[in-house]
Amino acid sequence: MPVSEFSLIDRYFAAHGLRRPDVALGIGDDCALLIPPAGCCLAVTLDTLVADVHFFAAADPEGLGHKALAVNLSDLAAMGATPAWATLALTLPRADEDWLGRFCQGLFALADRYGVQLVGGDTTHGPVITITIQAHGFVPPGLALRRDGARPGDGVYVTGTLGDAGLALAAAFGKVGIAAEHESYLRRRLERPEPRIAQGLALRGIASAAIDLSDGLAQDLGHILECSGYGARLEVDGLPRSPALTATLDRDAAMMTALTSGDDYELCFTVPPAGAAQLEAIAATWECRCARIGVIEAEPGLRLVRADGSACHLERLGYDHFG
Amino acid sequence: MPVSEFSLIDRYFAAHGLRRPDVALGIGDDCALLIPPAGCCLAVTLDTLVADVHFFAAADPEGLGHKALAVNLSDLAAMGATPAWATLALTLPRADEDWLGRFCQGLFALADRYGVQLVGGDTTHGPVITITIQAHGFVPPGLALRRDGARPGDGVYVTGTLGDAGLALAAAFGKVGIAAEHESYLRRRLERPEPRIAQGLALRGIASAAIDLSDGLAQDLGHILECSGYGARLEVDGLPRSPALTATLDRDAAMMTALTSGDDYELCFTVPPAGAAQLEAIAATWECRCARIGVIEAEPGLRLVRADGSACHLERLGYDHFG
Repeated sequence: MPVSEFSLIDRYFAAHGLRRPDVALGIGDDCALLIPPAGCCLAVTLDTLVADVHFFAAADPEGLGHKALAVNLSDLAAMGATPAWATLALTLPRADEDWLGRFCQGLFALADRYGVQLVGGDTTHGPVITITIQAHGFVPPGLALRRDGARPGDGVYVTGTLGDAGLALAAAFGKVGIAAEHESYLRRRLERPEPRIAQGLALRGIASAAIDLSDGLAQDLGHILECSGYGARLEVDGLPRSPALTATLDRDAAMMTALTSGDDYELCFTVPPAGAAQLEAIAATWECRCARIGVIEAEPGLRLVRADGSACHLERLGYDHFG
Repeated sequence: MPVSEFSLIDRYFAAHGLRRPDVALGIGDDCALLIPPAGCCLAVTLDTLVADVHFFAAADPEGLGHKALAVNLSDLAAMGATPAWATLALTLPRADEDWLGRFCQGLFALADRYGVQLVGGDTTHGPVITITIQAHGFVPPGLALRRDGARPGDGVYVTGTLGDAGLALAAAFGKVGIAAEHESYLRRRLERPEPRIAQGLALRGIASAAIDLSDGLAQDLGHILECSGYGARLEVDGLPRSPALTATLDRDAAMMTALTSGDDYELCFTVPPAGAAQLEAIAATWECRCARIGVIEAEPGLRLVRADGSACHLERLGYDHFG
């Protein structure tokens, strides 16, 4: 490939952010050289965001920089890992300094807050903005929060509230009107998800399984059930919903949104009955809510139950792409 | 994001390739869990290939799978690292099973050959094929081949021959005609570069600096010079050229191509005089050539010298985007 302004952008990124002592060599050589802590597992995850597929091409670049890293830190949180390093593959239609500056601002503000150093990058030219971030974290062997550890009788829990990002997206597409007082809250929930790192770390040794909610509770909990080989019963009227969601949608629509809309980046996890009291004590110190929403059962499948005990079916509510 | 066929492709990748004992958890959870060897540095690198920028969109997918990994393994080679793990971020306009099957074939054939396990992936929908691979390898502390270790008096060396991929690309664009007997060789040099892993490992403790040649010798050696703070004199008539290159281009054009065309993925490295004999003995066992092409000098800048001792200038030969 010919020399281009794009290859120079990597140096631009190298000038930002904090410096970790376990980075022997950062951006600027053929490889970064990293020193993992002795006796720890390295947790790695990557996520790609493509313009006009995962975000609006005209979206605020600062929010994009935040979100592109946040969705990866959320995966580390769901594994119970301590964040450490990130790499960035960025494809851009043009080298726009203003865009890059604001993207960096969002990216590095979040990275600095969680002690993450950007250690590698490749910036290339292409027709649409495409952002791939890989995040690396550490977790002691045996303490990682996997998807396959849920057992019958374990409680099913979620952090925060569900469906806010989905509601914000529906509003952005003009499918639903939201009151002015809820706008900034909902927008922040869609554009600036807060990775539940502290919660993931606190769940080490307590949760039997965990996942982060990127595709919607029903689908993501489905991955835990599939990997663990069991089913679950969810008390759908008890799903944690924000004032913005309950004020905007009727009961059924709010429930559907909480169950099926994506981009929440909350944690869904399971805890054996013996750990329930310990969880309750720990969760009382969290700045986000922690709600028990159901129970793991031996029979495979996801059963939705109303507060009055009656069964409820996603398909009958119009959800037809359950995966 | 809604459920899509793309999210299922990651499971497709999970079914392929070898299993390493240092992978505690591969594709299929929020993160992969990896066990780095005690006392080693982790070397990480990533490269993105975008359709119609770095390759033809209609290119043979098997070759693409090979090349997307090879360019990353080449970075590990240039660092003297032993390859271990890779992750793949793949953006595709459509989920084409035939294309995926052949892409996998090329990717995993090379991965298996170098003991690399694919441990993570994210497949997304987007307008053009975009491939980002991150490769992870190990190198003992202090033995990594960095760019900043060259010192005046060190010999400058390259593996293999230079300019073949550039010639193949020029031919693909119809800028030059090549004889039928050279076609398959040149095509292989462009589409199936062989990462110089064995050479990189052998250079630990011998080379003072190294880089892989992705952007052309003049530019890539320039990075070693810049990082090390010195200059170099190159004997341009002695640059290693393949029979295909010398048969196709006249002396000046062949020299220009060897100096400035990219995609060679050979190693360029420097060796102190005291290590020259040891290098010679080791390189005699390599299946590729190893040529001494110049010397590091105290004065910054790159000086090109003909066999008759006369100076030669890239700019005068029509190379105007140097640096």
